Amino acid sequence: METSKTIEDVYYYDTSLNRFIHGSVKIQNGIIAGVEETQNSGDCSRFLIPGFINTHSHIAMSRFRGRLDDVNLEKFLEKTFKLDSERTKDDIFHSTICGIYELLSNGITSFFDLYYDEDIIWDACNKMDIRSFLSWNTLDREITTQKGDPVDNAESFIREYNGKSSIIYPSIGIQGVYVASLDTMRAANNVSKKFDTVLHMHLSETRKEVYEFLDKTGKRPVEFLSDNDLLSKRLNAAHCVWLNDHEIKALGKNEVNVSWNSESNLKLGTGGFPPVPELMNNGVNITIGTDSNGSNNSLNILETAKTGTISIKNGRWDAGILNATDVFRMLTVNGGRASHIPYLGEIKIGAPADFNIIDGNHFSLQSSDPDVMINQIVYSMNPAAITDTVINGKYIKKDGKMNLDIENNYRESLRFLKAAFKV
Amino acid sequence: METSKTIEDVYYYDTSLNRFIHGSVKIQNGIIAGVEETQNSGDCSRFLIPGFINTHSHIAMSRFRGRLDDVNLEKFLEKTFKLDSERTKDDIFHSTICGIYELLSNGITSFFDLYYDEDIIWDACNKMDIRSFLSWNTLDREITTQKGDPVDNAESFIREYNGKSSIIYPSIGIQGVYVASLDTMRAANNVSKKFDTVLHMHLSETRKEVYEFLDKTGKRPVEFLSDNDLLSKRLNAAHCVWLNDHEIKALGKNEVNVSWNSESNLKLGTGGFPPVPELMNNGVNITIGTDSNGSNNSLNILETAKTGTISIKNGRWDAGILNATDVFRMLTVNGGRASHIPYLGEIKIGAPADFNIIDGNHFSLQSSDPDVMINQIVYSMNPAAITDTVINGKYIKKDGKMNLDIENNYRESLRFLKAAFKV
Repeated sequence: METSKTIEDVYYYDTSLNRFIHGSVKIQNGIIAGVEETQNSGDCSRFLIPGFINTHSHIAMSRFRGRLDDVNLEKFLEKTFKLDSERTKDDIFHSTICGIYELLSNGITSFFDLYYDEDIIWDACNKMDIRSFLSWNTLDREITTQKGDPVDNAESFIREYNGKSSIIYPSIGIQGVYVASLDTMRAANNVSKKFDTVLHMHLSETRKEVYEFLDKTGKRPVEFLSDNDLLSKRLNAAHCVWLNDHEIKALGKNEVNVSWNSESNLKLGTGGFPPVPELMNNGVNITIGTDSNGSNNSLNILETAKTGTISIKNGRWDAGILNATDVFRMLTVNGGRASHIPYLGEIKIGAPADFNIIDGNHFSLQSSDPDVMINQIVYSMNPAAITDTVINGKYIKKDGKMNLDIENNYRESLRFLKAAFKV
Repeated sequence: METSKTIEDVYYYDTSLNRFIHGSVKIQNGIIAGVEETQNSGDCSRFLIPGFINTHSHIAMSRFRGRLDDVNLEKFLEKTFKLDSERTKDDIFHSTICGIYELLSNGITSFFDLYYDEDIIWDACNKMDIRSFLSWNTLDREITTQKGDPVDNAESFIREYNGKSSIIYPSIGIQGVYVASLDTMRAANNVSKKFDTVLHMHLSETRKEVYEFLDKTGKRPVEFLSDNDLLSKRLNAAHCVWLNDHEIKALGKNEVNVSWNSESNLKLGTGGFPPVPELMNNGVNITIGTDSNGSNNSLNILETAKTGTISIKNGRWDAGILNATDVFRMLTVNGGRASHIPYLGEIKIGAPADFNIIDGNHFSLQSSDPDVMINQIVYSMNPAAITDTVINGKYIKKDGKMNLDIENNYRESLRFLKAAFKV
């Protein structure tokens, strides 16, 4: 790792001012140690932005891509559970390496994961140098295929891996209200509280989920969580499509983070759109998640963000209801806020040095104008425009080339999967 | 141009069988001269597919990207008309070069354009070696900013440029029923009939357009065109969001080609979705258009196709209502059918040699399995996975590098635009 380095002659994104400033960015020991404004003396077309933060994925599912398409969520879950039950440790490990390679190639420097066997995923993340928030998934003991009690497994995982890496954070998750009793959810929440970790869960993804739960308990899922003190700023709630006004207010009041997974929701034909404008108006911290290679299928978070945004515009008959800056912040600073790592997702002194450098001359941007660059990134940029990706001060990609270790890990894991499975 | 060449050891897409076959493809004098099936003896991960065909764009608008965002269509058109009225020939030429570079980078080998000054655009297309269907836009003489009569201008353009290139086809367009009288539309259609060219128009893009026209004429736009014998297989109708069952049947019966522009429609917040399943059921030839850099903003046709497809799935609460193969055909063979060039958009003997070669090991695909490759392309592929692009037998991109002339043209035009305008 380079202990000190200054990146000169770039436009860097100032999160507080909400615009690009020409100057230099100094990194030291994995942290942004200085930013300085300077005059642009030439034809600077390089833009330095926070790394993208993907707040919902099941990264080990990369191998299933293209094999779960064009079916509704129920059939999708049925097929997924069957595939999951047959997996080996090697399969999970190598699939994770391949999935992370795709994240990194898309300029994603941090991701939130929800799965079982997160210890294996931890090893892959460690090998690939990506900042990771790994939540061991829990559900009721009677129906899980995990050995032993899922909540105990999650707690053991956190105990063992806490502090083992400066960029990988073990935590706990809940599959969803449809497979977790109040006792299970309380136990998971207590573990999350005890270790002060993220609590990552699927929430109100489908209308069916909401109405079946309402039939069973007399309450809607978010209402139920609220009444049982399970909503908090530790919660990272994925999907949140089916909410009423009362629930939106509860999410805002309890500082819940919402991971918006537009492409997964649309592709699975779950109907409706999350009430993004109302969530924003109620102060909910909205972030972006790609969901898995099974349901999306791409881990291109920019595509997910754009598709979601224009869907909301169309759904509300109002092109102005969301703008590029709102969305850019969901991709960066809001994701950082969901992680609870100070300043993650920002370019400022003291922030983790996780960022991308973009070539404004790339075919998908064709611009050196800092005044429109946020729009170009959100509505047009191909992630191939990213020339450099830095995580925790370390170059993952430089001058358009992925770091050789990362590249070799990917090639090796892909070879393993091709030999073991028909991929 | 290489007069004869055989590409060995690829999976090529057989349009008739609707699947990939391992073998070789021979090209000769710009035409596919042979395809041969062979056993895959090694680890072939190269897939040869027809070039993508973009059936609706205003390519000269590339310079406006990022400057027309987050506003509804009316405001968008107002801003665009103002920008258009101030343009110089150089601006149009260099913006077109930059736009075409983006098309080519996205694996688009043919595009349909609708604009004025198509003679300037013709020069840029000729310089960039892209297959082009250029429609000179017409509207009522009293309201145009074009000098003289738009229909006469279009006819002169066709007369002058017909047969001047083996890959660029001059034709005529109509802006839309909201700025063209029946006389203008009849005159444009007659020119199209006389020269047997494409007739390219915006049609039923917004609810407002439909209801204002209904108020004025007592008929809905498609109904009006049908009753006046203006629907034919020469017509390439862009958008077609607001149609009733009667109109859908009329489009099918008259063999009209529909260009589906999902991202533009969504981003402009025009509400609703085109009735794609019903159009398909009525035999309408559905193709994909990106629309312009102003409204989309990306010319990534795969993104447009995916976004549209998953939007329809969500809108109908049915993930199975469209599948990857339907969409792949919209991007290729259906586009070719709209062009009326025999076999364009197919890989078969006698077809124009317009194709892409894809690296299955690319991060966005991670597959060598021909059985899922259509799904990977439609739902996940980053166009950066395209290693080779061939148009009319000529390599535009080879081994991941754009042909040097094309690259230099782009760099030069981008420099011009940066110096002349703040881009």
